Amino acid sequence: MDYMIGVDLGTTSTKAVLFDDKNQVIATVNKGYQLYRDSSDMAEEDLNEIFEAFIDALGDIVRSANLKADDKITAVSFSSAMHSLIAFDKDWQPLTRVITWADTRAVKYTEELKKSGLGQEIYAKTGTPIHPMAPLSKLLWLKAEHSDIYNNAAHYLGIKEYLFHRLFNVNKMDISIASGTGLFNIFDLDWDEQALAVTGLQKEQLPQPVEPYEYETSMVHEYATVIGIPDDTPFVYGAGDGPLSNLGVNAVKPGVAAITIGTSGAIRVVSDKPVIDPKGRTFTYALDKDHWVVGGPVNNGGDVFRWARDNMFDAEKSTAALLGTDAYDLMTQIASRVPAGSEGLIFHPYLGGERAPIWDANARGSFFGLNHSHTRAHMLRSVLEGITFNVYMVSLALEEVVGGLTSIQATGGFARSPLWRQMFADIFEQPVTVPEAFESGALAAVIVAQKALGKIDDLYDIEQYIGSSNTYQPKPENFEAYRELAPIFIRLSRQLQTEYENIANYQRKHAK
Amino acid sequence: MDYMIGVDLGTTSTKAVLFDDKNQVIATVNKGYQLYRDSSDMAEEDLNEIFEAFIDALGDIVRSANLKADDKITAVSFSSAMHSLIAFDKDWQPLTRVITWADTRAVKYTEELKKSGLGQEIYAKTGTPIHPMAPLSKLLWLKAEHSDIYNNAAHYLGIKEYLFHRLFNVNKMDISIASGTGLFNIFDLDWDEQALAVTGLQKEQLPQPVEPYEYETSMVHEYATVIGIPDDTPFVYGAGDGPLSNLGVNAVKPGVAAITIGTSGAIRVVSDKPVIDPKGRTFTYALDKDHWVVGGPVNNGGDVFRWARDNMFDAEKSTAALLGTDAYDLMTQIASRVPAGSEGLIFHPYLGGERAPIWDANARGSFFGLNHSHTRAHMLRSVLEGITFNVYMVSLALEEVVGGLTSIQATGGFARSPLWRQMFADIFEQPVTVPEAFESGALAAVIVAQKALGKIDDLYDIEQYIGSSNTYQPKPENFEAYRELAPIFIRLSRQLQTEYENIANYQRKHAK
Repeated sequence: MDYMIGVDLGTTSTKAVLFDDKNQVIATVNKGYQLYRDSSDMAEEDLNEIFEAFIDALGDIVRSANLKADDKITAVSFSSAMHSLIAFDKDWQPLTRVITWADTRAVKYTEELKKSGLGQEIYAKTGTPIHPMAPLSKLLWLKAEHSDIYNNAAHYLGIKEYLFHRLFNVNKMDISIASGTGLFNIFDLDWDEQALAVTGLQKEQLPQPVEPYEYETSMVHEYATVIGIPDDTPFVYGAGDGPLSNLGVNAVKPGVAAITIGTSGAIRVVSDKPVIDPKGRTFTYALDKDHWVVGGPVNNGGDVFRWARDNMFDAEKSTAALLGTDAYDLMTQIASRVPAGSEGLIFHPYLGGERAPIWDANARGSFFGLNHSHTRAHMLRSVLEGITFNVYMVSLALEEVVGGLTSIQATGGFARSPLWRQMFADIFEQPVTVPEAFESGALAAVIVAQKALGKIDDLYDIEQYIGSSNTYQPKPENFEAYRELAPIFIRLSRQLQTEYENIANYQRKHAK
Repeated sequence: MDYMIGVDLGTTSTKAVLFDDKNQVIATVNKGYQLYRDSSDMAEEDLNEIFEAFIDALGDIVRSANLKADDKITAVSFSSAMHSLIAFDKDWQPLTRVITWADTRAVKYTEELKKSGLGQEIYAKTGTPIHPMAPLSKLLWLKAEHSDIYNNAAHYLGIKEYLFHRLFNVNKMDISIASGTGLFNIFDLDWDEQALAVTGLQKEQLPQPVEPYEYETSMVHEYATVIGIPDDTPFVYGAGDGPLSNLGVNAVKPGVAAITIGTSGAIRVVSDKPVIDPKGRTFTYALDKDHWVVGGPVNNGGDVFRWARDNMFDAEKSTAALLGTDAYDLMTQIASRVPAGSEGLIFHPYLGGERAPIWDANARGSFFGLNHSHTRAHMLRSVLEGITFNVYMVSLALEEVVGGLTSIQATGGFARSPLWRQMFADIFEQPVTVPEAFESGALAAVIVAQKALGKIDDLYDIEQYIGSSNTYQPKPENFEAYRELAPIFIRLSRQLQTEYENIANYQRKHAK
């Protein structure tokens, strides 16, 4: 039997998924790593922790395949978190940890770029919103505040390119990941001269752009041994998790939105040409040289649910451990006992600043409407509803750019929760379908590998492998409550925005 | 030895305090009762629970005095929660529970009164802000929504008058409590004809106004027996807890503010004439016919701390019980580990609507500025700081009416917490003195009794009984943080106010 492995490189874990020759999931292995938040605006990962998690995950999944003599891993392919940056010196020694998309320390330089008007010029060519998430902004921050690193940096990579570099001694980046750097021209499909000039970088400091279908076949022998595969197993570059996500859930037709909520979240649609939002609220990233994905990313997804778990449901976390159940399941049960609308408690989920729809790295979280009847259960449900209302606000902006949306394909951690799926159907007032294949990112990576190796002609072959068993319809008794709350949520988000910069400045000044 | 008993009739408990003939506290007894909040806008007490708690407290304190043959209780006197209303039929059967100041169901009728301009006219004579707390508003609500009660009601009393009625078969109300009804003219010191006309009441339905120095000496024999005192023990009417509080902490000179935070809170100064705020933000209540107390009441004091305990620190509440310590002490220790300013987390404490400074019964609570570094400890400290910032906002309004404030005399539950005392000193940037006599309300009641019985000439004799051992000075490392946060707190309270009516309407519509 021929197998393929899809690897999903995420912000807090790496997942390896084993597929058989009918693209059925045989096994998955997940290995976590720390997201370092020494201060509220920092979000870094450790290079060795990530590399070890990756090697462990891959080794475990290969062992779980229990390969016979005529069995074979025909390819490993990737879906990767976007916008990460690592600096290396001329000898390829790392000068930084992985600075992830969630890191907002570059906010000051983003503001300057916006004010000068240069930001809008660059966005119109790169499709990457001017925001601290982007490597473009992180480079300006390093240049201004860490000139020792900036001056010694000979090379820059993201998390996936780092793994390829270490496994194959190469220096390449797929055009999908590249188009999330803020330095890549999505019309020319090459590094943008103006963006390079602004950051002071030479083209040589960046990897060679390649199509997602490019692959490597000469792994450093010791790693191949540890993983348990031949050195010449093809490793396909694959693409960014955002663009691949739409492919992976078959959200490729007009009006079909892919919504994913993992640590962060996004809503996206596929376009056959690069479209730019004149108001700069959406991104446009290449999937390959014929497809672009237009959408809005949100910082505040499962990461906010986790904050609630660790800080407000720490007791239940212990209880869940004693019960041998998952804390999130217990919390979801608690939240489901509160009616839709949380009896008038509203949560703005901007704990980590926000990208779409408000593009304000200074944004912060808030509860509004607390009264004596509200319990922690209300606060919890309002956290889930707030995350959802925020994605709904993004969908309103996206419709202005690409036209009306008609249905939702839902993935990510939230799609595991029936409560949350129903909440999306109710707030969007649209049917929400959950693809049968939950490992859509890894599946899409594997489909890319099949095209790379000439086994299929068209990416859209993926459709046959995706079921659609679970469709959630909006319930009137719920969406009527949400219709009343949504305008309050939206108006409040404007009112609160007037003080975000002030409170964020205070927090930076008084950070321990 | 001659003893006196001061009784402090509060919202959730009755306290009886035994004083010796040097006005030293010998013993205290506290008996709690339930505050019924079947819905978030209701706040009622049960008549029998209160009466029994009162009888129990008084009986216990008498027994604790262990009276010898030549010992004597020379008087019992009262400090009482204000603004409560109970309706009785012609046979003096109660038609309602005690509807307390904290009940906001009359909000709609208050809004109407304000919009018609009639509210301001009545306020200018009664000194009682137009607000659901006042019996004036509750009567309009009963008339419109509970006409069965309104039409059958032959008599109306407050909580203290109910006790006197049951103990002595009388129908009287002291002018201090009367001046908190919204029906009493503080210039004429009699029921106001216009206020009566608005509510449709006859003067005969209200008690006879008496000075706080009036007393009764013919108790129903069975109650005297249960309590363990002679039937002819003088029961002095005393006054409202707000006005008496200034006397009890010796905050009677210009610029000396009394701040008390119990279930609710207030900041007050004494005036020798009735002064009215043209903007209607402060109250003016008679203490006796020569003194008035001007100030601002806040709904959201210890009641909000309790909400935080019951809903966010339920685990620590259990831990405190196991430790045999007080949950609030444990919580205060937790809050003290967070720096002043809660690292930029702001809480508006309006869980129960708010009186001063924003006079908005629709106001609701909010957390603002949440980021990933914030823990429950930050949320807790911000709750305490939010309660304090709100009182600070009232002090800014009060200064416009009566002139600058120079120092603070602090009482109420919060004064037991060194953390909270220091917080007040730091936010107000003024020295905060905690009177040595914590039972200031009961002491003031006893001083009123001494004047009533001719034992002293001047109420200000109280000064000699009040020490001032603990003075807290503002600390620069704290007040500099608060100086930065206060403007954000104040501006936000205006921004948030734009949505209070909408969210409150939603909550009323969707209440279970």
